[in-house]
Amino acid sequence: MRYSRYFVHTLYEVPKEAETPSHILLLRGCFIYPAAAGVYSLLPLGHRVAEKIKNILRAELNAIDGIEVTLPVLNPAELWKATKRYYHIGQELWRIRDRRDREFVLAMTHEEIITDIAKKFLRSYRDLPVMLYQIQTKIRDEARPRAGLLRVREFFMKDGYSFHPDFEDLDAYYPRIYNAYLRIFARCGVTAVPIEADPGIMGGTGSHEFMLESPSGEDRFVVCSQCDYRANMEKATGLKPRRQDPPGTPPPMEKVPTPGIKTIAQLMDFFKISEEHFLKTVAYDADGELVLAVVRGDFNISPTKLANHLKAVRLDLAPEEALAEKRLHGGFLSPVGLEPGTVRVVVDSSVDDGTLYVAGGNQVDVHLKNVLCGRDFHAPEKVDIAEVRDGDTCTACGRGKLTIRKGIELGHTFKLGTKYTAPDAMDVTYLDADGENRPVIMGCYGIGVERLMASAVEQWHDEAGIIWPLTIAPFQIVITTLGKKTDVDQAAEELYRELTSRWEVLYDDRDESPGVKLKDADLLGIPIRVVVSQRGLKQGRLEVKVRRSGEVLFCSREELPALLEKIQADLMPEMDGLPFMPE
Amino acid sequence: MRYSRYFVHTLYEVPKEAETPSHILLLRGCFIYPAAAGVYSLLPLGHRVAEKIKNILRAELNAIDGIEVTLPVLNPAELWKATKRYYHIGQELWRIRDRRDREFVLAMTHEEIITDIAKKFLRSYRDLPVMLYQIQTKIRDEARPRAGLLRVREFFMKDGYSFHPDFEDLDAYYPRIYNAYLRIFARCGVTAVPIEADPGIMGGTGSHEFMLESPSGEDRFVVCSQCDYRANMEKATGLKPRRQDPPGTPPPMEKVPTPGIKTIAQLMDFFKISEEHFLKTVAYDADGELVLAVVRGDFNISPTKLANHLKAVRLDLAPEEALAEKRLHGGFLSPVGLEPGTVRVVVDSSVDDGTLYVAGGNQVDVHLKNVLCGRDFHAPEKVDIAEVRDGDTCTACGRGKLTIRKGIELGHTFKLGTKYTAPDAMDVTYLDADGENRPVIMGCYGIGVERLMASAVEQWHDEAGIIWPLTIAPFQIVITTLGKKTDVDQAAEELYRELTSRWEVLYDDRDESPGVKLKDADLLGIPIRVVVSQRGLKQGRLEVKVRRSGEVLFCSREELPALLEKIQADLMPEMDGLPFMPE
Repeated sequence: MRYSRYFVHTLYEVPKEAETPSHILLLRGCFIYPAAAGVYSLLPLGHRVAEKIKNILRAELNAIDGIEVTLPVLNPAELWKATKRYYHIGQELWRIRDRRDREFVLAMTHEEIITDIAKKFLRSYRDLPVMLYQIQTKIRDEARPRAGLLRVREFFMKDGYSFHPDFEDLDAYYPRIYNAYLRIFARCGVTAVPIEADPGIMGGTGSHEFMLESPSGEDRFVVCSQCDYRANMEKATGLKPRRQDPPGTPPPMEKVPTPGIKTIAQLMDFFKISEEHFLKTVAYDADGELVLAVVRGDFNISPTKLANHLKAVRLDLAPEEALAEKRLHGGFLSPVGLEPGTVRVVVDSSVDDGTLYVAGGNQVDVHLKNVLCGRDFHAPEKVDIAEVRDGDTCTACGRGKLTIRKGIELGHTFKLGTKYTAPDAMDVTYLDADGENRPVIMGCYGIGVERLMASAVEQWHDEAGIIWPLTIAPFQIVITTLGKKTDVDQAAEELYRELTSRWEVLYDDRDESPGVKLKDADLLGIPIRVVVSQRGLKQGRLEVKVRRSGEVLFCSREELPALLEKIQADLMPEMDGLPFMPE
Repeated sequence: MRYSRYFVHTLYEVPKEAETPSHILLLRGCFIYPAAAGVYSLLPLGHRVAEKIKNILRAELNAIDGIEVTLPVLNPAELWKATKRYYHIGQELWRIRDRRDREFVLAMTHEEIITDIAKKFLRSYRDLPVMLYQIQTKIRDEARPRAGLLRVREFFMKDGYSFHPDFEDLDAYYPRIYNAYLRIFARCGVTAVPIEADPGIMGGTGSHEFMLESPSGEDRFVVCSQCDYRANMEKATGLKPRRQDPPGTPPPMEKVPTPGIKTIAQLMDFFKISEEHFLKTVAYDADGELVLAVVRGDFNISPTKLANHLKAVRLDLAPEEALAEKRLHGGFLSPVGLEPGTVRVVVDSSVDDGTLYVAGGNQVDVHLKNVLCGRDFHAPEKVDIAEVRDGDTCTACGRGKLTIRKGIELGHTFKLGTKYTAPDAMDVTYLDADGENRPVIMGCYGIGVERLMASAVEQWHDEAGIIWPLTIAPFQIVITTLGKKTDVDQAAEELYRELTSRWEVLYDDRDESPGVKLKDADLLGIPIRVVVSQRGLKQGRLEVKVRRSGEVLFCSREELPALLEKIQADLMPEMDGLPFMPE
């Protein structure tokens, strides 16, 4: 491609709101252009990168028996009502009406549509298993689009859906998609950390996220210092260190007036004890029901864990009125002294039965001292609802320390089970070999194309610009001429013609200064730069620069093809050593 | 691909509303599945065909310097307000609001978005010309989705937009896209007739449609029996045969009471004259203004021609109240006797000054006889607003007869000029070589992928099913085994392995009867069928059937590769003889 006839217009200024490296560099390099908040056009360079990612996705998914389809953006709302997601998902599900007032949603994922297809066509055990996938436009009315392509309202998603005769078959297939995901990210040059994940609104029985550790990410996940344990914050568990009270008969509970004392700091000061001696009680509204959640004072409640335990679709902090109705008082909440059966109480497993706590008094300006779980209040629902903390001990190995990291979610795999195929959802069954009707078992698997593109930039950039992994670079080679001499142009033209038969070449034939050309080549991040200059011609040599290493090599015209092949081999992603799941 | 592990579930029943061959066969062959009225999923076979069409589009457009991009479905409404299309386009433009109540449209085409990009990046004459295109999801809230993929509400469109420094440059580029379109349709195996078209809501200064003549089409176009003239009904003109009155001084106009006489048939009977002796006057509401349109009685008014002449965005029949306001009477309308300046009158060129007509009297139960245009009423706006008629003489050659045909619009090319770049639209200018600001000149070019797929089926099918053109067939070859013997399966397996290195092969390895397999192969329309049977094996020969011709050939295993190449060569579309425009 000749630069002068291509569509690249690099920018030196970008909008102030662009803060993450990928946002800034993709705008500056003319890869993308915003149409609205969180809505982008992929300009020619960006389109090329996206196509390369799509082709890697196709190759890896076809290799594990994936079959490509295209499903529509317009989804009839009835299907989403059948699975209840119409009611459970918030405003990010864009609901619209057609000219005849029929309701549609703009699909943010395609479980409903694909399950409807499965219901129509998958009738017999001979039709299973099958994995259908697509790479298609998704629309989500995100509350806060951010960071360029990292969180957007419209994007290409690779979403795949597998259908199985039973859980064993899904379990057998799952490692294949998991490993394909590892290969996909590796082939795109991005270091993905697979972590245990919470299935969230997708529902189901098990899932993994694939994260790129990055300061630009908005997800958090934990990593064990000793073992392979990796999990997202919503799912991660750490060991909760036991507290040890002095031996002897525990003293009885007593009321302590605490006028004007409100914050935890004031309480610690007043009682002269540290955080872990308190019970922290928070009131939630879970699908309309008032729930008190109790953790030890040195922990925080994880709303996701609590919601999962409650199977709640919506979980918010309880409003004042809901507390007043039960004669409870914010700031003095406690699981102690509640009338049995009036309020549901969920207690975190950090609260043990053998140690004394200070708790709220369930009346204004009163706290309770020497509260003993099991004696002064009961905890029929004691489960893990606490957020893991940086430095907690790993539950998996019992030795390592957990560290909390920021990351970008690159992909997500779910074992859905019968969430969408169950009789109370879309009721999809097949006839097994014995003629029995059985529910179809599902898995689903997603990767966002644009986010993967931006993540590659987050991982691979420097001061000067992007450093595209060779596999997804818009062009592999840029030919840059220095000086305007006829012989330079002629040599470059010949080189361009020759190299295009083997490589994707951007030939910078512009009438620009060497400085501008070299700067643009660095900004665009083309992996290999071949410089044709008058001095080089005289010396019979070409200058070859590897963008990633910065290495500069010299060679003759004859040596060039072999050198380029060698550089390519060096730049190809390493597949060995990926943390594959046994298949 | 092994049929048993693929996703093909042919149907013997289809919805009653499926009437056109492509709708029926694409459903029966498991190429598509409806999600809602006019909204389809492309199942694996349909997806494959669409991808082949997309690749042909890409190859031909890249060959004429097209550069691919991806533009978003979500378009901010402001851009569409800037070009006024927000106001001018009816309900087919889907208007939606986001969670912050910002207004968007779901893009049905992308002039606004691409022009916004042009405005940002195309600053200098050195940036021009450039042609950007995409193959991307379009959404239109069609009033009447019909005929499967022929008219839908969501589809892939290839839309391209070219930007030029002046009209001469656009005129020079236009034949290249026109010829690329001819090659695209030919490569897809579809016979496209290029016709002169009306630019319609796209605006602009010249355009062509590419039509497949088909009884399933809903467009009409005219073809000259003698010359190359082809045009759509909205644009077509025929010679309007003159009427000849007897020589002598024309008699004066006179009022004739016509009580109870309303229809044209009654009038002809009453006055004992034929249609062409009447003036037919119809009242329209053109963007709120009352307009009387007058044609000779043997013609009909073309609302599109009238709207174009008036530059009207909306043109409807005038309501009773609008007539009453001007003291006009439906059924007795006439251009005669109107108070000057009160009502705009447009007269068709079929009405000549030298002949006498019967016209309405502009009062109830009265007609006028011996009305002479120029004497009894004036026609300052005499233009062509009549629909062409089957059998009219061609205006282009003056000899041939025009025939009206039904067709499917496959593609459309427009010279847009400055419709979108003008100062009162999006105001896009560039600096020319002399440093002068000049408006950018545009063209735009569209092809619907799914409609092209369906059109191929409309053109290529028989009683037994689809007959895919080889170039867009989901698979080129189907291997069918007859009988369940081990040696048959083994031979087929080997053949499958061998052929897949060169061809796209669907291997029907199902445990089904020969009848079912052969019937499915015909329905799916795979161009070449290779049959492996026990008898064939014994005789050392394979049966090869060409779906299109029905020809059955026999060959040995060794002869097969050469035979397949020969069949392919025979099936490749002919490019010579296409009606190319001189470049």
